[in-house]
Amino acid sequence: MNDGGTNSPVKVVVGLGDRAYDILIGSGLIARAGAEIAARLPGIRAAIVTDENVAAAHLDALTQSLESAGIASTAITLPAGEKTKSFAHLQDVVDGVLAARLERGDAVLALGGGVIGDLTGFAAGIVRRGMNFVQLPTSLLAQVDSSVGGKTGINSPHGKNLIGVFHQPRVVLADTDVLDTLPVREFRAGYAEVAKYGLIDRPDFFAWLEKNWREVFSGGPARTEAIAQSCRAKADVVARDEFETGDRALLNLGHTFGHALEAATGYESARLVHGEGVAIGMALAYRFSARMNLASPDDAARVETHLREVGLPWRMADIPGTLPDAERLLGYIAQDKKVSRGALTFILTHGIGQSFIARDVPSSEVLAFLRENHPG
Amino acid sequence: MNDGGTNSPVKVVVGLGDRAYDILIGSGLIARAGAEIAARLPGIRAAIVTDENVAAAHLDALTQSLESAGIASTAITLPAGEKTKSFAHLQDVVDGVLAARLERGDAVLALGGGVIGDLTGFAAGIVRRGMNFVQLPTSLLAQVDSSVGGKTGINSPHGKNLIGVFHQPRVVLADTDVLDTLPVREFRAGYAEVAKYGLIDRPDFFAWLEKNWREVFSGGPARTEAIAQSCRAKADVVARDEFETGDRALLNLGHTFGHALEAATGYESARLVHGEGVAIGMALAYRFSARMNLASPDDAARVETHLREVGLPWRMADIPGTLPDAERLLGYIAQDKKVSRGALTFILTHGIGQSFIARDVPSSEVLAFLRENHPG
Ligand SMILES: NC(=O)c1ccc[n+]([C@@H]2O[C@H](COP(=O)([O-])OP(=O)(O)OC[C@H]3O[C@@H](n4cnc5c(N)ncnc54)[C@H](O)[C@@H]3O)[C@@H](O)[C@H]2O)c1
Ligand SMILES: NC(=O)c1ccc[n+]([C@@H]2O[C@H](COP(=O)([O-])OP(=O)(O)OC[C@H]3O[C@@H](n4cnc5c(N)ncnc54)[C@H](O)[C@@H]3O)[C@@H](O)[C@H]2O)c1
Ligand SMILES: [Zn+2]
Ligand SMILES: [Zn+2]
Repeated sequence: MNDGGTNSPVKVVVGLGDRAYDILIGSGLIARAGAEIAARLPGIRAAIVTDENVAAAHLDALTQSLESAGIASTAITLPAGEKTKSFAHLQDVVDGVLAARLERGDAVLALGGGVIGDLTGFAAGIVRRGMNFVQLPTSLLAQVDSSVGGKTGINSPHGKNLIGVFHQPRVVLADTDVLDTLPVREFRAGYAEVAKYGLIDRPDFFAWLEKNWREVFSGGPARTEAIAQSCRAKADVVARDEFETGDRALLNLGHTFGHALEAATGYESARLVHGEGVAIGMALAYRFSARMNLASPDDAARVETHLREVGLPWRMADIPGTLPDAERLLGYIAQDKKVSRGALTFILTHGIGQSFIARDVPSSEVLAFLRENHPG
Repeated sequence: MNDGGTNSPVKVVVGLGDRAYDILIGSGLIARAGAEIAARLPGIRAAIVTDENVAAAHLDALTQSLESAGIASTAITLPAGEKTKSFAHLQDVVDGVLAARLERGDAVLALGGGVIGDLTGFAAGIVRRGMNFVQLPTSLLAQVDSSVGGKTGINSPHGKNLIGVFHQPRVVLADTDVLDTLPVREFRAGYAEVAKYGLIDRPDFFAWLEKNWREVFSGGPARTEAIAQSCRAKADVVARDEFETGDRALLNLGHTFGHALEAATGYESARLVHGEGVAIGMALAYRFSARMNLASPDDAARVETHLREVGLPWRMADIPGTLPDAERLLGYIAQDKKVSRGALTFILTHGIGQSFIARDVPSSEVLAFLRENHPG
């Protein structure tokens, strides 16, 4: 395994033909960003989109790095948090990019977590019907998941991520150093998506995580390795199914329950952030699969144990405050975008690393399961 | 030549591989819309987006037609006019489609002119990252131009059509009967785009129009023929260059000057509508080409004569009210989206049907030309 040493980043290629791009993962990549971008997009100007937290810690370093590579830039700084993925802020970014008089061949750079990445990618996809886009993910979740694959978007009052486009970045630069300023709760939330790749179809990776998660949290080669493995897992799926017409849906393991819980808690990050919703959602997907006699209860228990051990919530009772009742939770699930012709589609599992797409899951079973597991 | 008889529509295919689609042109197509759509998209539900003028004349007929083909629909009716191509109305359409709980495989139908088509196509392209989209163009301009080719979008305070996506329709149904309720000024404006195809690269078609334009205006086979020829011309260009990286830009003949004039008149349709701006823009492009010794002044005069004869404006002096000065007009041109790395790109011409893409047009020449031709 590549140790992702300090000076040579690990490279993962997302194989999408003439839209293929590199993900670089390693130390010092913000400082190298100007050079990496200039090598791929010579002569451009840039707009950097970021949030207030990330700007405080890393914006100057990026601006410097661009400047020394001859790339002039302007910054658009937005409030932090899921609520920024809105029409109003989309318009702010679009206006900011146009006000900077950037042309179609210039670039829009997302410096931040998944919120900034999703919003910025969407804006880059619609200004002049598609500008160059670069991801500089700064949260663990963004480095292992949201920055890879070109899915961009914002939320609607009708549900999460319902509005957006597919717009692939030209390059993804994941600087592992910037994770040091990330609040540990956010790091943990991102770790849920790392574990997800093991639970989907990489049982050995999950077993490796059970042994090495402490080193992933503390930093160094194991962290770089976990991020690179995750990117490889996601890049594989994306290359097979760019537009989510088939098995890209596997990446939604834990997300149907998770999104419903995010909606049910009003996207209040004080109560639940995305990765925490996914953690609970994965535990529920395993538990529900066991209840349906698809997987062994031991596997469900193994998932719960690992999530609990790393400090993630793993059951609905772990969410502070009261939840809507089971019927209302089912309503959130039905409104989630992974509904096709009224039947419920879930990612279920036959065991660790053996997930599959289950269509026509009876909503009566889901409702009964939600009632049994509801804390209130 | 096919006469587009009352009962069998003329079909033009837009050859875009797995995104290929039919344009049907003829009489009675609103009444057949339900059947044509159900044949291509079985089992769907639909949202119809339209404007107040078109709704009053044609919405009931479409709703009936869908219903008798078993397609349930809801309608979203917006104010008429260019100002509807805004972020606020985009959000209205997106919210309306989501509120109707349409799924990714359902369809969004644009019933209206280019404004409704551009806005609706954009909304269809971003709800759930791309829903099925059907064009039912009701203005001449929309039937010959905006409904074909998948370019969608809205305007920004920074310029027209600066925000959008490429999103191809699944079918285009151009009912020639509905043009009877179109105000004659709008019909004329659409005719400018018909003439445009002749002026780009079809000199015989332009000569045919010089002879037959009265029949095109009065209706019947010549009208259907002109629409079908126009769709064929546009479909050819689009199939060669779907994403406007090359000679699709030829379709912008007359549009660089035209967009600047639209911006300069604040998009007030009382003063200038899109097709009128294009008419003046084409006359200016021919006149400017003559001034640059690229084309003969006789050809410029021939274009002006034809536009004047059909009742279209053909020079800046034909616009009611005062225009900004030449410097400000040049500013609008520079901000237009067809600017690459600061150089001005124009569609110029060597004569009737001999247009070409001219890059690096010196802005000093354009300025001098605007001064010479400025009415005020
Ligand atoms: N597009 C996709 O494929 C995809 C996949 C998964 C998740 N997502 C989306 O990603 C979003 C969640 O991403 P997230 O968890 O990164 O949320 P986020 O962007 O809100 O970041 C979490 C918090 O960490 C802060 N932060 C980020 N990097 C930091 C750093 N280096 N130092 C200090 N603070 C930092 C942010 O300001 C924010 O407060 C959700 O909206 C989800 O829908 C998208
Ligand atoms: N997407 C493209 O490739 C493309 C190409 C050319 C133009 N456009 C866009 O198209 C727009 C102009 O289109 P337009 O001229 O159709 O404008 P429009 O949609 O505003 O229609 C013109 C007027 O005619 C009315 N109308 C339309 N059909 C009618 C009917 N059958 N009966 C009665 N009234 C009717 C409308 O209500 C409106 O008042 C511009 O925004 C332009 O940018 C787009
Ligand atoms: Zn996720
Ligand atoms: Zn036009």
